[in-house]
Amino acid sequence: MTNTAQQNDLANAIRSLSMDAVEKANSGHPGLPMGCADIATVLFTKVMKFDPADSKWADRDRFVLSAGHGSMLLYSSLYLLGYEDMTIEQIKNFRQLNSKTAGHPEYHFAQGIETTTGPLGQGVGNSVGMAVAEAKLAAEFGDDLVDHHTWCLAGDGCLMEGISQEAIALAGHLKLNKLTLIWDNNSITIDGAVSNSDSTDQIARFKASGWNTIEIDGHDQEAIEAALLKSKKSSKPTLIAAKTTIGFGAPKKAGTNKVHGSPLGAEELAGAKKALGISYPAFEIPADTLSVWRAAGMRSQNVRGEWQSRLAASPHKDEFERRQNGTLPTGFLEAMDAYKRQLGEDRPKVATRKSSQMALDVINAALPETLGGSADLTGSNLTDTKETKPFTVENRTGRYMMYGIREHGMAAAMNGVALHGGLIPYGGTFLVFTDYARPAIRLSAIMGQRVIYVMTHDSIGLGEDGPTHQPVEHLSTLRAIPNLLVFRPADAVETAECWQLALESTTAPSILALSRQGLPTVRTEYTMENKSAKGAYTLAGDLDADAVIFATGSEVAIALEGMKALGEKGISARVVSAPSLELFNQQSDAYRAEILGAAKARVAVEAGISMSWDRLLGDNGRFVGMKSFGASGPIDDLYQFFGITPQAVVEAVTAQL
Amino acid sequence: MTNTAQQNDLANAIRSLSMDAVEKANSGHPGLPMGCADIATVLFTKVMKFDPADSKWADRDRFVLSAGHGSMLLYSSLYLLGYEDMTIEQIKNFRQLNSKTAGHPEYHFAQGIETTTGPLGQGVGNSVGMAVAEAKLAAEFGDDLVDHHTWCLAGDGCLMEGISQEAIALAGHLKLNKLTLIWDNNSITIDGAVSNSDSTDQIARFKASGWNTIEIDGHDQEAIEAALLKSKKSSKPTLIAAKTTIGFGAPKKAGTNKVHGSPLGAEELAGAKKALGISYPAFEIPADTLSVWRAAGMRSQNVRGEWQSRLAASPHKDEFERRQNGTLPTGFLEAMDAYKRQLGEDRPKVATRKSSQMALDVINAALPETLGGSADLTGSNLTDTKETKPFTVENRTGRYMMYGIREHGMAAAMNGVALHGGLIPYGGTFLVFTDYARPAIRLSAIMGQRVIYVMTHDSIGLGEDGPTHQPVEHLSTLRAIPNLLVFRPADAVETAECWQLALESTTAPSILALSRQGLPTVRTEYTMENKSAKGAYTLAGDLDADAVIFATGSEVAIALEGMKALGEKGISARVVSAPSLELFNQQSDAYRAEILGAAKARVAVEAGISMSWDRLLGDNGRFVGMKSFGASGPIDDLYQFFGITPQAVVEAVTAQL
Repeated sequence: MTNTAQQNDLANAIRSLSMDAVEKANSGHPGLPMGCADIATVLFTKVMKFDPADSKWADRDRFVLSAGHGSMLLYSSLYLLGYEDMTIEQIKNFRQLNSKTAGHPEYHFAQGIETTTGPLGQGVGNSVGMAVAEAKLAAEFGDDLVDHHTWCLAGDGCLMEGISQEAIALAGHLKLNKLTLIWDNNSITIDGAVSNSDSTDQIARFKASGWNTIEIDGHDQEAIEAALLKSKKSSKPTLIAAKTTIGFGAPKKAGTNKVHGSPLGAEELAGAKKALGISYPAFEIPADTLSVWRAAGMRSQNVRGEWQSRLAASPHKDEFERRQNGTLPTGFLEAMDAYKRQLGEDRPKVATRKSSQMALDVINAALPETLGGSADLTGSNLTDTKETKPFTVENRTGRYMMYGIREHGMAAAMNGVALHGGLIPYGGTFLVFTDYARPAIRLSAIMGQRVIYVMTHDSIGLGEDGPTHQPVEHLSTLRAIPNLLVFRPADAVETAECWQLALESTTAPSILALSRQGLPTVRTEYTMENKSAKGAYTLAGDLDADAVIFATGSEVAIALEGMKALGEKGISARVVSAPSLELFNQQSDAYRAEILGAAKARVAVEAGISMSWDRLLGDNGRFVGMKSFGASGPIDDLYQFFGITPQAVVEAVTAQL
Repeated sequence: MTNTAQQNDLANAIRSLSMDAVEKANSGHPGLPMGCADIATVLFTKVMKFDPADSKWADRDRFVLSAGHGSMLLYSSLYLLGYEDMTIEQIKNFRQLNSKTAGHPEYHFAQGIETTTGPLGQGVGNSVGMAVAEAKLAAEFGDDLVDHHTWCLAGDGCLMEGISQEAIALAGHLKLNKLTLIWDNNSITIDGAVSNSDSTDQIARFKASGWNTIEIDGHDQEAIEAALLKSKKSSKPTLIAAKTTIGFGAPKKAGTNKVHGSPLGAEELAGAKKALGISYPAFEIPADTLSVWRAAGMRSQNVRGEWQSRLAASPHKDEFERRQNGTLPTGFLEAMDAYKRQLGEDRPKVATRKSSQMALDVINAALPETLGGSADLTGSNLTDTKETKPFTVENRTGRYMMYGIREHGMAAAMNGVALHGGLIPYGGTFLVFTDYARPAIRLSAIMGQRVIYVMTHDSIGLGEDGPTHQPVEHLSTLRAIPNLLVFRPADAVETAECWQLALESTTAPSILALSRQGLPTVRTEYTMENKSAKGAYTLAGDLDADAVIFATGSEVAIALEGMKALGEKGISARVVSAPSLELFNQQSDAYRAEILGAAKARVAVEAGISMSWDRLLGDNGRFVGMKSFGASGPIDDLYQFFGITPQAVVEAVTAQL
């Protein structure tokens, strides 16, 4: 080790705070912060571009701690760098309720936390999305406004997770050269040596995916700095394999799994401080060390000032700021309204996936910030429009991501795009494959990011592909995720309305569940009001009808047929279209009571399981839908076989009367 | 191409049937069967060991069509080989309701279908599990009884999916040399050229993961045979990169994405048949070609006869057959009963994850067929016992899989282990990370396999790790999957009972949701009866109590405290422990009515969302649980903060009275 005394002091400040915080909380992960302190020191004090005085500066470098359990590395660094909200009290309150220093880094909790991490591998995907956003915006606005780097710190766990391969392969393919992944190569996992469960030659693996690779001693600050700087000059994304000792400094536990996820204990902590030459009290960083850190924190102020001057003088200023703020442009609402008006005349009978594409024709023309894509199902998801030229190595202004067969990587990358700002990502696959992307979808919701999932083939209505491809439980299981809007529009009008709601939702992600099969227009009268905004509304029938029939998506037409058949029997019914149960549940009690009504019979129809409807159905309501996995066959046969028919609606109503 | 005329005829028989079936169904994927016909021909007629007369022969080679959309490749081959149930009528009924020839291969539907595939990459994981099972059983029973190979055919989609990396890395690490993955390297995905979305050097990638690699022309049957045979002699798993032309033979569409997933159309079909030299009518394979196929199908009959003789003479015969049949050994029930009796005396206050380990001490001693494991959380999941020496390259008799940080790969491999037979796989991770494994869990359920998921840290009760690690919606979303048993035991007794139920469940997989935190024994009286078998039962209180309080797992103790507090207010209450809502829902109406009771107040307590309880709660019931994501903090603070307390139970009851 060739570090100078000061270099060691800077790194030891991270180690000391991290050890102390974990010890005080009696919970947490000291191993990574101790092992990666040299890396963080160099990255934050010498290489990265950022300014604690403006943590949201658009042209800052991004740092993603994919190995989120090492959160104290980040919190310690943020404190040392002088981020105002990361006080020493916060460090002392590590892992306590309502502190900013949660067990894993939580986006929104504190400045400088660029993404929520913890579920392994997600940060790798996020960082790929951030690098995509940077490249795209640089091409669009010029590198005088957009020219920054994305740094991701990942552990063995991140690299073992499958999502990492999806992200790594995509980044290599797209030659995202402003992305550096630092691998904390400490040879240790929770269960012991990495060699217990993995023999991957990571260098060769990254090379196979088109990455530049550098191997260094992760405790040699000169080598770290050289590698980080070199990676910025690469024409490819760079892996820096940094050989580290987990729990560096701990006399007995360093280099073992004992230091990964539990406090050191008083004796080992004292031994570590002694070995590291840390003589100051817990949580008290010496003024000279702190002042070096704080000065380093301020070192990009001039760069930011120059950037602000360039922005102020730029012809792109207003548009750049609008895009960064995430506000939709004037004219968008008018364009959507004109389109809805046109639909009222055209009354197309098309699948809602096609309706979605028609809406996207309007949206993509009006919103330059959409970044579309699909996990290799473009022709099925219908996520492309004439504006969506692919984003490629040659064309960084492209507006369409060819994500490949990588649903999970797509979702995590979309999170990164949204977090970066300046773009609104949407991406498609089949609804059933939300299962593949679910950990990243959950993070979209936890972080409240405007990510739009365009999920087609949304029921047994997809037909012959059979049970593995037919979502049955998915509408309910997606509705189960807090802070996620699930939309299932019934026709072209509702699809346009739901797209608008998804685009306007700046604090929650959205799922659009769309049909493969053609559906009639059920909203035949133009209304300026976005009726889908209330989640559910009366589509047909009188408020005092004997029966109320709730339905979504492709089953709304079935409900309407059921209503007609009931009418022929002299039973009055009302059909409620419910494109979003989440939005309906947010309405006033009065509105909900009006829609639920006092009907003697209540039925819901949806080609999925009943779980998310059970509350609304209550003791006496009946459900027409699925109770099992689907089957392979033509669509009409399947709806008959599973009993999702107007006749079943009639029977469900009459059984209650 | 150097194939003989007969070799071409054999392959063209697959192509012809596949084209005709897709055309007749007007739905399906002709591209893969046409492109991989030469590979399948060589594999099935020359290399693989199997016998259509005994499709479940334990020592058969396994074939996994990971690229399940190419199902007609398999169906055509099974018909040609003479599998009795795969008639030409089935081929003609491709993709029709109730046919054996579903859109994607469905396990149980027809002989020779070794696993359900379609969701990409799953078959790769299944095949790794099958190869593990073979190696383990060969070490246990000797290679005179167990000596077979696993063949997996995968496409670019499978290899792009992250799960493939998890599976490939694990297979390489474990040197599963009796596993061959044939990559249908056709350079085409649904959206166009692979090069649109991927630049991975797959050969280098597999080498980096410790695989042997061979590159061949996938239409040269001599080269295919040589490669397949060579792969059987490797000391590592082998990738055969077979360069193919998707839709081989189609005059205009071959080599393009147009032939991937839609019928050729009459004109193109005719052109393909002409180009391939197929002059016979649709679905009518010439007798001479069929007879060669049928003879090839019978060619392992002698080998099977010899194997049966060896089995008949083996001292392992009874145990081998028991294991293959999947029946539990005599003595198991007695061992579990003795353990339960002991628990009645000991009344331990331990976390249910610890209770699970205590149960496993009994189970693993009694059942040599369990194959444990964890996705690198052994010390947290407590999935190890003294019997569980790791399964490694050096120790193939090991009973514990060090799966690494690969939840998805673990689940898919467990499916493969279960499908292989002879072993009962269980594996652990945190409950929240069922999301990572969800596509494979769903396939466990679709296939009805006895796979046991040991999911610990099952609520906010895990404390400081925070919202990314705290399951909130997961109990509901797992209960939403058809044919999956979700168990959430309350104490050591219920944990033992639930383990027993999971082991006895031969047609459905199980999830055990287990606490991190210590829990008191609530079942203090020994009963021989497995009370958990009914899913829910009265734990305390009288049937005619004013209130009934349902609870599961860690919240049962809270319910009991609530009951006590209500008693002090003069309100009688009854506590129902509900370790499995699925099993409860399977009980008679009378039993369900008895348990639900006529109480004036009904409450459910569970540290998750209410969705899966809504039906039971009905119009007036109240729920004490979660409505949002969790938070980072000590457990007691979290339960207070989110209001999951005895006091909240009291309030929920009194609000109804």
